[in-house]
Amino acid sequence: MSKTIDFYFDYSSPFGYLASERIEELAAKHDRTIVWRPILLGAVFKVTGQAPLTQMPLKGNYSMRDFARSAKEHKITYKHPENFPIGAVAACRATLWMRDHESENISKHTTAFVHAVFQAYYVAGKDISDTDVITQLANDIGVDHALLNSAINEQPVKAALRKEVDDAIALEVFGSPMMIVDNEPFWGNDRIEQLDRWLDQGGW
Amino acid sequence: MSKTIDFYFDYSSPFGYLASERIEELAAKHDRTIVWRPILLGAVFKVTGQAPLTQMPLKGNYSMRDFARSAKEHKITYKHPENFPIGAVAACRATLWMRDHESENISKHTTAFVHAVFQAYYVAGKDISDTDVITQLANDIGVDHALLNSAINEQPVKAALRKEVDDAIALEVFGSPMMIVDNEPFWGNDRIEQLDRWLDQGGW
Repeated sequence: MSKTIDFYFDYSSPFGYLASERIEELAAKHDRTIVWRPILLGAVFKVTGQAPLTQMPLKGNYSMRDFARSAKEHKITYKHPENFPIGAVAACRATLWMRDHESENISKHTTAFVHAVFQAYYVAGKDISDTDVITQLANDIGVDHALLNSAINEQPVKAALRKEVDDAIALEVFGSPMMIVDNEPFWGNDRIEQLDRWLDQGGW
Repeated sequence: MSKTIDFYFDYSSPFGYLASERIEELAAKHDRTIVWRPILLGAVFKVTGQAPLTQMPLKGNYSMRDFARSAKEHKITYKHPENFPIGAVAACRATLWMRDHESENISKHTTAFVHAVFQAYYVAGKDISDTDVITQLANDIGVDHALLNSAINEQPVKAALRKEVDDAIALEVFGSPMMIVDNEPFWGNDRIEQLDRWLDQGGW
């Protein structure tokens, strides 16, 4: 088994989206497997006292410019959603259920699903807080929507998301994206170059 | 007169230090003059509800790694000070007094003084909260220490610092370094490349 890149992200994180569009190329270069780790920054912010960037005093206008400029820097389509941030609990549960569901060829669809959800929100402007939107996105990539809809309403999947978030906080994951390789954390789309160099050199 | 880069910084900001070591090359490339704008993030944080990076829940350990990795990325010597963050009121007042003191050939020393203070703190580990340290640093680069010591205890210089901070907050400066060119703000040492591209292209 190849080594991993733990990729922590919130679907309401613009920089999580930008990094999600870039991380596969990096992982392939270094022969690493991505472990998609959806979290809820709302829970993290209760610990850190932070708030969504667009709601922080003085920082809101800047963050909008920064999203747009950073997307252009990497030539990634980005349309700031009208409803932002958004509750992505169903999307997170669906992602976790797929990732950890190795039977029935389901876990192999996880990467495509993560991209589908992010692009639905930041490109197509869809309401990804809507469970029907999420199950339809899954169906479009070959995951039975009824099976998914059932799974994300069951206790084990709900518990899995709570555990994913709690474990992330225990590892001092405080933002999105946070990428951890061999216990070394890198926070932000703007740290992918440092992560690349770290993997090139095995530390520095 | 050439156009400017307004460079807002706090002497207790590691990324302000890193950017201060890089901004002159950028300014020269684009024929811009740097306006050094020392501020006190403590006053800004009262508005934003933020705290120094090293004191934020979950973020302290990470920020220490990030300082060290970012310094290495740019081949800048960085030793995290034992006493961090530090009160830099005297250093800020001295910087402003020099910058705005065009007679007696004093303002021309401002850039050298900014570097001297940052390096005293992040390379030599000196106590830059000590007014004697600050006046000695100024003396070393050719600014009379008695003249400086007198100036920074006078009301106009104290008021100038308060105004500098208030004006920065009015412009939504929320962190260090913040670089503003032609009303476009760039926050962080890690945005210097975007600033470079912005100046190359006249926006994008």
